[in-house]
Amino acid sequence: MNVRGRSMRTIWLGADGHTVEIIDQTKLPHELVIVRLATVTDAARAISTMQVRGAPLIGAAAAYGVALAVAEDPSDGGLAAATAKLAATRPTAVNLRWALAEMQRALEAVPEGGRFAAAIARAGAIAEADVAINSAIGERGVALIADAWQRKGGGAARVEVLTHCNAGWLATVDWGTALAPIYRAHEDGVPVHVWVDETRPRNQGAGLTAWELGEHGIAHTVIVDNAAGHVMREGLVDLCIVGTDRTTAGGDVANKIGTYTKALAARDNDIPFYVALPSPTIDWEIESGASIPIERRDSREVTHVEGWTDDGRRLAVRLTPTNSPAVNYAFDVTPARLVTGLITERGICPASRTGLLDLFPERGR
Amino acid sequence: MNVRGRSMRTIWLGADGHTVEIIDQTKLPHELVIVRLATVTDAARAISTMQVRGAPLIGAAAAYGVALAVAEDPSDGGLAAATAKLAATRPTAVNLRWALAEMQRALEAVPEGGRFAAAIARAGAIAEADVAINSAIGERGVALIADAWQRKGGGAARVEVLTHCNAGWLATVDWGTALAPIYRAHEDGVPVHVWVDETRPRNQGAGLTAWELGEHGIAHTVIVDNAAGHVMREGLVDLCIVGTDRTTAGGDVANKIGTYTKALAARDNDIPFYVALPSPTIDWEIESGASIPIERRDSREVTHVEGWTDDGRRLAVRLTPTNSPAVNYAFDVTPARLVTGLITERGICPASRTGLLDLFPERGR
Repeated sequence: MNVRGRSMRTIWLGADGHTVEIIDQTKLPHELVIVRLATVTDAARAISTMQVRGAPLIGAAAAYGVALAVAEDPSDGGLAAATAKLAATRPTAVNLRWALAEMQRALEAVPEGGRFAAAIARAGAIAEADVAINSAIGERGVALIADAWQRKGGGAARVEVLTHCNAGWLATVDWGTALAPIYRAHEDGVPVHVWVDETRPRNQGAGLTAWELGEHGIAHTVIVDNAAGHVMREGLVDLCIVGTDRTTAGGDVANKIGTYTKALAARDNDIPFYVALPSPTIDWEIESGASIPIERRDSREVTHVEGWTDDGRRLAVRLTPTNSPAVNYAFDVTPARLVTGLITERGICPASRTGLLDLFPERGR
Repeated sequence: MNVRGRSMRTIWLGADGHTVEIIDQTKLPHELVIVRLATVTDAARAISTMQVRGAPLIGAAAAYGVALAVAEDPSDGGLAAATAKLAATRPTAVNLRWALAEMQRALEAVPEGGRFAAAIARAGAIAEADVAINSAIGERGVALIADAWQRKGGGAARVEVLTHCNAGWLATVDWGTALAPIYRAHEDGVPVHVWVDETRPRNQGAGLTAWELGEHGIAHTVIVDNAAGHVMREGLVDLCIVGTDRTTAGGDVANKIGTYTKALAARDNDIPFYVALPSPTIDWEIESGASIPIERRDSREVTHVEGWTDDGRRLAVRLTPTNSPAVNYAFDVTPARLVTGLITERGICPASRTGLLDLFPERGR
C-alpha cells in the first residue's frame, strides 16, 4: 500500500538478484529503514527480532531465507540446517512451517547447481501468492463493511471497525489480512474509521497499524487495549476484524495476546467479530486451540516499553519495580464460539470444520 | 503497610500541624518522594496530576485540601471556592464529592476562628475512618481467599488472585480496598500470589501495585492487560478482586478502564469476580452505571508512556505516529451482572440494590 504517496511492499528481491530487502518494522513508526538480508542468519535474525513479523510475512521471509541459505550451501544438509534454523525462530505461526515445507518440496528434486535459481523463483512465487490471497481477502471481506455502511444509511456515515495488533500490509507482503477489506472499502469510497488497539507489549497497533493507516490516508484513532470493551459498550464499533497466526481446523483462533478479551467484549455487545486469514494460516492437523503452543517472549517486553524520545532516539523505559517478576505470553486462543466468521481468500465461512471444508473441500477426507 | 520494612501511610498531617504530607505516586516505583502540601492549590494539583489517586485517598486529600484552604480564608466564600476548586479535579470518583460534603457539614456551623482546627480534626477523622473501613474490608474479604486455599487443599498451595489497576494501600490512606484481603491473608499465613495487570495508560498496576506488594513481601507477577484473559483460560486464577471509583445503588461498578473486559474473562471462565469498596464509594443517587460521567484524560497518556531510563531519569517516550489521533477514556462500567459480589466494610453482598440494602438498611426508604 502507500507510503508517502508511493506504493510499497514489506519484502522484495534486491536489484542485485541475490539479496533480499525488508522494511525494519522495529524502527516504525518513527523511521522508515530498509535492511538488506544477505544470509540465512540475517533472515532468521530478522524474524526472531521481529524486524519482519505477522504470520504471512514470516512465511515469505522464511522462504527467502531458504534461498539465501541455498546460495551459500545448496546441499541437502545445508537445506536441512537452514530449515531447522528458520523453523526455530517463532513457534506459533503456522505459515512459517508451511513456507519451509513448500521450499523443501520445491528444491529437493532440483540438482544443487539449480537450487538457488529455483529457490528465488519459489520464494518470489510464495510472496506473489500472498499478495493475491490478501487482495482476495479484501474483495471477500469488503462486503461486510459495505453492508454495515448501508445499514447506517450510506452517505457520510462512517463504518467503525475495531482491530487488534497489526494484521495490515506490514504483516504480509502487501494488502494485509484484517486490513485488506478496509483498504478495499477505502478504494470503493466507503467511509471507514478504525479503532486501533495499542497492543501491548510490543504495541504493533499503536506503532504499525496506526502508521500504515495514516500513510494510506485512512481515518483512525488509537486507544489502549483496556478501552476496547468500553468503546464497544458505548456503541462506537460496528464490527471487529483481526488477523490470526494459526487457526485450527475446528475454527479456534490463535492470535496476538488480548484477542480473546476483545472477542468477549464483541460478543457481550452483539458486535460481529471476524478473523481474516489466508488459507496457509489454517492448521488442518489440529482441531482444538488447546493444542497450539503459545510463545512466551522475554519478560523485558512487559517490564519495559520502547518508544521514541522528543529528540528522535529509540529508547526503552522501565515501568515496573526492578525486583517484580513479569511473564510475557505472546498469543492467546479465541475459541470458535466467539468468532462470527472467518474471512478467507475463497469467501467468508463459519468458524468450524464444516464451514472451512465448504470453502476448502479438497481438505475433506 | 510496609515500605523498606517500616509501616507507612499515603497522607498525614505534617509535624508543624498545618501542612500535609503525601507520597508523590507519580515518582513510584523508582523513587520514594514525600511532597508537602501547604495550600488548597497544592492539594488540587496533587489530585489532578495524580500525585495522589485512588478514590478513597482522593477523598482524604480533598478533606485536607479544605483544611488548607480554611487556614488561608476561613470565610463561607472561601470554603465554597475551595470546595468548587477541589470538586473540579476529578469527575468520576464519588468519594471526592462525599468528603467535600462532609467537610462542608462539619464546618458550616463553626465560627470562622475555629474553622481551621475543626477542619484539621475532621480531615484527620476522615483519614482514620478510611483506615478502619479498609481494615474491615480486609477482615471481611479474607474469607474468600481462605476458602479458596482450603479448596486447593491448604498447605503450600497458593491462592492465585488477579487484580487490575491499583486498589492497594496507595489508593487509600492505608490497607487498600481490593488488596486489603490479600494483606490480611498474608498476615494469616495463607500463601497468596497476585497477577498484576499493567493497567495502561498510566500503568498503576505495573508501577504501584507491583511496588507495594513487593515492599510488603507478597508474591506477584506483572502481566500486560491483554494477558489477563489468557491466564484465566489457562486455569491460573482462583479469583479476581478489583477496586472501584463509584458503584451505583444497583451494583454497576465504575473502575479503571479495562475492568469490564477482565470481568468478562472471569465470567467466561467461571472465576469469581469481586469488587472491594468502602461504603463512601457507593453512589446511592443513581441506579445504573450509564449515568456515571466517564473522565477523558489527555491523549498524551495514550500516545506516550512514562518510565525510567537505565540511568534513573523519568522520561516519556512516544509510541504512535505523530499525526495519529488517540482518545483516553479513564474508566469503564462493569455491569452488576458480571460482579460475583461486593466486599464492603460490613460484609460481602450481591451486586444489587437488595444486596446493598441488606448491609446498609439505613439507606432504604
